[in-house]
Amino acid sequence: MRNIFLTIRFIGTNYCGYQVQKNGVTIAEKIQDSIEAVTSVRSDIKGCSRTDSGVHANQYCLNFYTHSQIPCDKLRKALNYYLPLDISVTSCSEVEKDFHARYSSKGKEYVYLIHNAPYRDPFLQNLAYEYPYNINIDKIQKAADFMTGTHDFKSFCSTKTDIENTIRTIYYFNIKQENELVKLYIAGDGFLFNMVRIMVGTLLWVNQGRISEDSIPEIISKKDRNSSGVTAPAHGLYLNKVLY
Amino acid sequence: MRNIFLTIRFIGTNYCGYQVQKNGVTIAEKIQDSIEAVTSVRSDIKGCSRTDSGVHANQYCLNFYTHSQIPCDKLRKALNYYLPLDISVTSCSEVEKDFHARYSSKGKEYVYLIHNAPYRDPFLQNLAYEYPYNINIDKIQKAADFMTGTHDFKSFCSTKTDIENTIRTIYYFNIKQENELVKLYIAGDGFLFNMVRIMVGTLLWVNQGRISEDSIPEIISKKDRNSSGVTAPAHGLYLNKVLY
Repeated sequence: MRNIFLTIRFIGTNYCGYQVQKNGVTIAEKIQDSIEAVTSVRSDIKGCSRTDSGVHANQYCLNFYTHSQIPCDKLRKALNYYLPLDISVTSCSEVEKDFHARYSSKGKEYVYLIHNAPYRDPFLQNLAYEYPYNINIDKIQKAADFMTGTHDFKSFCSTKTDIENTIRTIYYFNIKQENELVKLYIAGDGFLFNMVRIMVGTLLWVNQGRISEDSIPEIISKKDRNSSGVTAPAHGLYLNKVLY
Repeated sequence: MRNIFLTIRFIGTNYCGYQVQKNGVTIAEKIQDSIEAVTSVRSDIKGCSRTDSGVHANQYCLNFYTHSQIPCDKLRKALNYYLPLDISVTSCSEVEKDFHARYSSKGKEYVYLIHNAPYRDPFLQNLAYEYPYNINIDKIQKAADFMTGTHDFKSFCSTKTDIENTIRTIYYFNIKQENELVKLYIAGDGFLFNMVRIMVGTLLWVNQGRISEDSIPEIISKKDRNSSGVTAPAHGLYLNKVLY
């Protein structure tokens, strides 16, 4: 059995997230369909994480086992032949037997895109959050800095989950302005349900003055979803890379 | 009468180009619809140029006369309210009575985007030309340099036009590689029908070795469309800015 590692890129708009579910079409289902079309076997695939409905990926990673002897370069092309145009396999390689896209990873980097201009950008429809108000980068960066390090992030976790361990480590949370785009890069060892989107929404509350940038440590310490800000829309969020 | 100057941005995919025509929906028609919805008068609009079906614009310019007294900032917002999501007014200002978006311009800059990777990019579907083969930037830049200056560009003009003066001046033609994207920037005082697309297609023929980079002066001197390369697809081309 070969262990095949894929990196993929996808527009999440038309999918109910990555993970296979009964309520709608998912990225994982499309990947499995294409693997089955190419190898004639429906493989179990190991994804690096779940993603919310509508969230995109510049780089998502997964692996699967196969008896197929198709060389990696041909396998990539064949999978892309069967995949819809909003999903693309960007690399395909053979890895060690015990490699697992999720358990072998050291963390992930997300980027959240905000189009910050007084008009909407047609090219960013469904691909960035339109936020036409002035953004004080220094102020929200200060709030973001309080979110780095190891904390119990229960205040930044959707209540629609019964996960027990809500302690995570955020490696960095860096905000950059490039012309009309504000890009929020966040990396960590793991992320709770809706965590990045709640963090971004909280930063926007800080920007609007609804809460102070200095109140973040208190919000964290409360371990209560009611203390943090709104969940920012899914369509601004991208899984940017997986750290191995 | 006020003379209103608009800059707009649009995805050209779903339109039969800018100029109003009977065979399909155009950008100009949508702009006129929105002006009529806001001011109750169907205005004649002066666009900076025609664009081919499927071509995009980061910045397209136009002007129109109106008796409306709506302030410019409100006018921009009102027009965007009525425009479809693939067209956006990015600025609105009042200009001198004799300003004309086309006749007052000193030229235009186009950018042609090539996604140069062994896989397609879902985010660039219809927004860049997928060209998976190796590109020798130095070689095609040398060919492009022969296309700058003042020449009779009849060899780079579609035969589907009966225009008489085919002499134009190209200010610059600069090719840049940024990760997976090759960006071809070209500016000039005016462009013939399909001119940029034929120039780009000719550069790709040079890249493939079908013609030599040194053959460009000869191709120009032949004044014959049969001597130049293929017309590159419309969906890689963007009107990038208008020079005033």
